[in-house]
Amino acid sequence: MQRPPLKHWRACGAALVVRLPDDGDTRERAICTVCQTVHYENPINVVGTVPWWGETGDQVLLCKRNIEPRWGKWTLPAGFMELGETTAQGAARETDEEAGASIEMQELFSLINVVRVGQVHLFYRARLLSTHFNPGHETIEARLFTEDTIPWDEIAFRTVRETLERYFDDRRRGHWGVHTVDIV
Amino acid sequence: MQRPPLKHWRACGAALVVRLPDDGDTRERAICTVCQTVHYENPINVVGTVPWWGETGDQVLLCKRNIEPRWGKWTLPAGFMELGETTAQGAARETDEEAGASIEMQELFSLINVVRVGQVHLFYRARLLSTHFNPGHETIEARLFTEDTIPWDEIAFRTVRETLERYFDDRRRGHWGVHTVDIV
Repeated sequence: MQRPPLKHWRACGAALVVRLPDDGDTRERAICTVCQTVHYENPINVVGTVPWWGETGDQVLLCKRNIEPRWGKWTLPAGFMELGETTAQGAARETDEEAGASIEMQELFSLINVVRVGQVHLFYRARLLSTHFNPGHETIEARLFTEDTIPWDEIAFRTVRETLERYFDDRRRGHWGVHTVDIV
Repeated sequence: MQRPPLKHWRACGAALVVRLPDDGDTRERAICTVCQTVHYENPINVVGTVPWWGETGDQVLLCKRNIEPRWGKWTLPAGFMELGETTAQGAARETDEEAGASIEMQELFSLINVVRVGQVHLFYRARLLSTHFNPGHETIEARLFTEDTIPWDEIAFRTVRETLERYFDDRRRGHWGVHTVDIV
């Protein structure tokens, strides 16, 4: 994700200048040239689920993207966390919006830092309550895959691949962990 | 944390108006009246550690705050995650800045949604390598406490108290989990 250009202060519209603040901060910030307020930019959370089906969880739900970037590639349902919701509520909302899937939310499964773009991706395991999906406009098709049938070369994002690999690893081991991964 | 007023678009400085975007979004956003670009506001991550000492981890390091809010109250080292770092790197940086403590970073321990203020707090367990602390200007004093000596009524933030309680619970159980907590 490219962040929009940062040239004007959100409160008054005056020009920003990049310099060290006067409060002992050791990092250069964008600072308002009129009111001297410091603008902080922080990483953004992306929240989603690994929706699974089958007594042993051998199938997972993937969505074929109908939007850029990575149009036509396959992803787990996920999107930007919004104000006013928890990480799990955001993950459930995205699962509804992108897959129209009915789920029971489970535990946090992966936390993946994507440092270069300033994002933290959080995936929860989610038990599918039905195989009837009703994807929204962002999705061409929502479908169940086993590990063998997943289109591994057509996965939209590395965070999704890393999460899916760990899902099937943990399933084989018979133990669900919480996985932290750093992509620099 | 109060977010600064949002009145002008960061790229061009023109006025923003709050309305539904034209792209099918179901949530009102601040949109530039000139270039129509949508401004998104998202939750911010706060990252920190539970620095522990003693063969059985019976002591934890707390910092007495030298800054508002909650001046003079006790906290675990934590602060806003920055661009260009992972969650664990941010937690280590804050531990260095606020406590000047030498640590070995361990596993993610708690993820706490603070919905009302749009924050997600992430604490990692961290083994202290020394009891020599060198706190920065944000801290009056950095000290080790056992569960019995922690000033429970003088803890700065609920996220810190929730994390400390789970730390000592898990220690008693002899098993370290990853705890997700929602504060609405």
